[in-house]
Amino acid sequence: LKSLGQQWVVELYDCSPHQLDDIDFIRETMLAAAHKMGATVVEEVFHHFSPYGISGVVIIAESHLAIHIWKEYGYIALDVFTCGDGISPEVGFEVIKKAVDAKSSKVVKTLRGIKSELGIDESQPHKPE
Amino acid sequence: LKSLGQQWVVELYDCSPHQLDDIDFIRETMLAAAHKMGATVVEEVFHHFSPYGISGVVIIAESHLAIHIWKEYGYIALDVFTCGDGISPEVGFEVIKKAVDAKSSKVVKTLRGIKSELGIDESQPHKPE
Repeated sequence: LKSLGQQWVVELYDCSPHQLDDIDFIRETMLAAAHKMGATVVEEVFHHFSPYGISGVVIIAESHLAIHIWKEYGYIALDVFTCGDGISPEVGFEVIKKAVDAKSSKVVKTLRGIKSELGIDESQPHKPE
Repeated sequence: LKSLGQQWVVELYDCSPHQLDDIDFIRETMLAAAHKMGATVVEEVFHHFSPYGISGVVIIAESHLAIHIWKEYGYIALDVFTCGDGISPEVGFEVIKKAVDAKSSKVVKTLRGIKSELGIDESQPHKPE
């Protein structure tokens, strides 16, 4: 990997409205996504706004998942940020997109902590034969 | 505004190392940033990793601020996501960048929930004179 982490900045459109105001469902979905990714959950916090709207974050040892829901527009702003080998935002994205039945989505993928910019040199010297 | 929100995905480089493992300092800095932005804090959670490393999130009524710190590289991954008029990620970014004494930074700005994509029409009809 050429960066410490990778982040998917996700827009989910036309989500199933009856699930977008159920904070327990959203929490369980976010935790399920973290577990399916193979992440280690360290903290989680969810908040329900009046009359509706949910914001929540799952901090994982490998960074975080964050969600903000606008039920009135069937719209979800989702971030999935992971670090390290063997864990990918894509797995979490797929779990959440399916759970909320998003009809379409847009993903912007960014690298976080590009190693060459941090002075990290992981090039492996070749051993002489 | 043409979107529900805006998010700054921020890389902070060459930060002052003696502040990067102080969870109380980081929490206070993040809360100060939220307050300076004029945001309403609804939840906050911070976690210290062993031997070092801090992850934390402040959920605001207007979305969130999230931070992940790699002390060993003097590097911080910061997200500042705000919604609505009269509140800008830039203010929070500036508070945090100054507090950790980052020598350089990189910001990727994204719009979240573009209104035309959500079918929101805010055009004001002109009144006949």
